[in-house]
Parts: sequence; C-alpha cells; structure tokens
Amino acid sequence: MKQVTIVGLGLIGTSLGLALKQLKNPPRVIGNDVQYDAATRASKLKAVDRAERNLQDAVPGADLVVIATPVSAIPAVLRAAASVFASGCVVTDTGSTKREVVRLAQEVLPPSVSFVGGHPMTGKATGGVEEPDASLFRDIVYCLTPIAATPGPAVATVASMVQQIGASPYFVDPAEHDGLVAGISHLPYLLSATLMRVLASEMSWREMSDLAAGGFELATRLAGRDPKMYADILATNSDNLVRYLDRMLAELTTARDKLASGQPRLVAELEDAQKKRLEWEEKRRREQEARR
Amino acid sequence: MKQVTIVGLGLIGTSLGLALKQLKNPPRVIGNDVQYDAATRASKLKAVDRAERNLQDAVPGADLVVIATPVSAIPAVLRAAASVFASGCVVTDTGSTKREVVRLAQEVLPPSVSFVGGHPMTGKATGGVEEPDASLFRDIVYCLTPIAATPGPAVATVASMVQQIGASPYFVDPAEHDGLVAGISHLPYLLSATLMRVLASEMSWREMSDLAAGGFELATRLAGRDPKMYADILATNSDNLVRYLDRMLAELTTARDKLASGQPRLVAELEDAQKKRLEWEEKRRREQEARR
Repeated sequence: MKQVTIVGLGLIGTSLGLALKQLKNPPRVIGNDVQYDAATRASKLKAVDRAERNLQDAVPGADLVVIATPVSAIPAVLRAAASVFASGCVVTDTGSTKREVVRLAQEVLPPSVSFVGGHPMTGKATGGVEEPDASLFRDIVYCLTPIAATPGPAVATVASMVQQIGASPYFVDPAEHDGLVAGISHLPYLLSATLMRVLASEMSWREMSDLAAGGFELATRLAGRDPKMYADILATNSDNLVRYLDRMLAELTTARDKLASGQPRLVAELEDAQKKRLEWEEKRRREQEARR
Repeated sequence: MKQVTIVGLGLIGTSLGLALKQLKNPPRVIGNDVQYDAATRASKLKAVDRAERNLQDAVPGADLVVIATPVSAIPAVLRAAASVFASGCVVTDTGSTKREVVRLAQEVLPPSVSFVGGHPMTGKATGGVEEPDASLFRDIVYCLTPIAATPGPAVATVASMVQQIGASPYFVDPAEHDGLVAGISHLPYLLSATLMRVLASEMSWREMSDLAAGGFELATRLAGRDPKMYADILATNSDNLVRYLDRMLAELTTARDKLASGQPRLVAELEDAQKKRLEWEEKRRREQEARR
C-alpha cells in the first residue's frame, strides 16, 4: 500500500490514520471530511499527511480507500467517488451494518474496483466523546464481509491492513454480521436509551436522579452515544432488531408475570444470566491473552 | 459511639469496619458473620477489633448495630437479637429495600431499641466481586428512612456515622425509597440479566460472543452480580418493579412497532434519551464537586 485515503475523520477514521502512520513502512495517508474542523484536527494530530477538501481530489491516487463516515453517508460517498477510484483500487468501510452497503457497492462500483465490507468491534465501554487513539484497534476483532464475487487479492489487502493495525480479521457473511450485531450492539443500545427515557419521564425522576449510582450509570451509559448515528444504524438493521426485541419482550413479560404472581423469586433465571456472563468474561479473557 | 457491632461482613460490612477504624476517635468495632471465612477476613484486614461467632455475643455491648447482611437475612437477625440489644441501642441496616425491614423492626424490637433504615448508594459500576475498601462510602448518597415514630436522637446517631464515613445522608420515606430504587437499580439489573439470557440462548450465541465488545460488555455487566442476593431484593420490591416493567414493556413495544413499520428512524426518542443522560451526568458532576 502506497496510499490510503480515509473518508470521514471522526473517531474511527482519525484513529486509523494514527495507526497507519505508526507502521514501520507507513503508507501516504490522505484524509477527507465534509467538516472542516474534523479535517483540521486530523491534520494537526498527524493522522493524515494531507487533508483534501473534495472527495474527488482525495480518492484518485489511493490503493486502498477506507470509508469511515456515519452509516447513512456511505451510499453518497460510494456514488460520488465511483468514477474516480483508481483502477484496481480496493474500497472498504467501517460501518456498523453491512448488508446495505455491500449490496450498494456491487451496484455502483465499476468492475475494476473491489469492495470488502468492514466493521471494527472497537471495545471501549464508554459513552460520549472519545479521543482518537492509534491503539483503538489493538487486540480487537475486526469483521470483514467479502462475498463470493469479491476478488481474493482485495480481501487480502484489507485483511493485511487489519492485521497491521493490531486487530484480528473475522470473516463473516454480511447478512449474518447484521444479525449478530443486532443482538450484541443494537439491542443493548436501544434498551439503554429506552430505560433512560422511561426513568426521566417519571414524576419522581428528580429524586431518582439524586440517588442514581453505579447500576443506573452502567445501564444508561450507551444512551449517551450519538443518537443520529444510532438512528441510522438501527434503520439499516430494523428487521434483525425487531426479532431480538420480540424475544426480549417475551422474556421480560414472563419475568413480569412471575414477579406479579406472588412467587416472585427469579433465582434460576438470574443464576443462569450470571453463569452466562461469567463464561463470556472468561472466554474473552482467554482470547485476549491468546491475541497478545 | 463507643462500640459499633457490624452483623454481616461482606463488602459493605467489612468496608464500613475499615472506614470506622480510620476515624480520629474510632469506636470499638465488633463483627459477626455466619460464615467463618468472612469473619476471619474482616479480622485480618483489621476492619473489626474482634469477631464474635455468635450474634448473641456480638450485639449486647453496642451503642450502634449495623446489619449488613443480605436483605433476606435481616428479619432473622432482628428477631434473634431483639432481646439482647442494649437498652438505648440504635439499630440500622444497609439493605437495598426498606419497607419490609422497617415494618418488621417496629414489630419485633423492644421500645428501648430504635431502628433507622439505611441504604448506602455505593457508586461502583462494577459487576462481580469487589474488595472491601474504607473509601467505599466517600462522596456517596446514603439513604436513611426514619419514620414518624423514630426518636430524633437515634436518627442523629446514624446520620452522624454516615457523615463520619464520608457519605451524605438523604432522608426518604421507606416506601418512596423502594419506588425510587426499583427504577434506578432493580429494573436496570433485571434488563441486564434478561438481555444476557436472551442472547446466550440464541443459535448464533457462539458467533455473537466472538464479536461482543464494549456495548455488550456494559449492558450485561450487572448480570454478573450475585443472583441470590438480587432475587431476594426483587422479591421484596416486586410491586414497584412490575410497575416499571410495564412502562418499559410499553415503550419497547412502541419502538418495536416503529422499527417494523418501515419508518424506522427513532431520532427524536434517541435524542431525548441522550439529552437526559447528559443532563444527569452534568448534575452528578456538579454534586460530586459540591460534596468534596
């Protein structure tokens, strides 16, 4: 890779630029963002060698283009840049859902340009604003969603970038990916946002907010994330999310009815939940050790 | 206070002992726990001056008795010790629900013994096992639930202890307390445990667990907490919890139907949730500054 162009210089795009510029043989990194401030910040942080104001100027010389915009902006970027990607260019994205973007890329990109969907499972358990960080991708799982028609060398190019920035490529079908993230990411976010709204609309919210501590803080932290970004993500994955919501509604209704019945101890259910959670923690711990 | 007896030497009881022994004029602290290991640990940590194996030996000399056992054990402790509390003794507890224990204390304690319900809103956002820590109560809100019949000096004794260990007393009616914690503590826990069970019972759980990162980790952390302890807490607060569950079910069903309708952008709802969460963060930040 001689030149990588990063479109979208938010947390992911800027962190990627920083990670690429720390490689032993770093590529030239060109950045582009519709927001002047974002581009300026990325330049100051030296996450990009140069920021181009126009997409059409940023893309042409690139061997690899990474689209790190919000999910809702990816279609417009693909369409606008379709005719200026270099022949043989590999394009990837970092969006949280993959079916729509993979389908659209097939539709709008010329045969000389290859698309490999991507989604870094960045692991920070924070809400709100984070600072760009070259180590954002270190030791994380990075989904790649090639399809049967994707040329092998294009897949290898993106997988190589993923490994160079310290992440582990995880190959998964785009539709399967979207089903998995509906459960582990989109449902948790929607639960957190809904809980926050339910509590804040109570008459006693003022008193609740005085007492709210650790459990509340954890359970509503995801609600602090960017609502426009998540609204777009949920909109591209509503079928999967509805399926999980239906299961969640059924389980919560069962718990509700048990609590209301006067035989309210939910020990077996709660023990099962703790067991599964502790198993996952142990699995993650082992895997993180193995990756290091 | 010359002697404080702490019944139940888990995280809360042992941390309280450590906090009391760090005071300028520390009281004598006697500990009691049905589990030999817990009593031994508290002694080794010097959280207690002496551990007594029998409740009837631990309680008699105390000016203040703090019952820091699981919620389900408090009634038995009150009953077993009712006849051996010193005349003029003040009794408090640290349980997560307050109606049942306050009612029972009125019923079983002699007139010479005063009961003031208590509930420290310890703020740590962790799951699983924590280590006892003298600073556990520093800068937190500590609910006290005296009723009309509670003698003023007894309230003052417990409030003074709360302030000495660095917490802020928050006076609230027992029934109101239970309503508030149903929303900010018990509902978040039940959502976390239910989410964990829903995901772990999916066919694709193995793949999900490979990809699960920050959002999942946050949303299921509470599910890692002690299920028996929580089953007891929920059982003593099921009416309030059912009321919140009904609101949560209604809101989730509305979101589900919007997502399924093909006009799936939930921007207004998600923006509202973010706004409320950020307001709470700001309020908490200001209050924590004010307390320091």
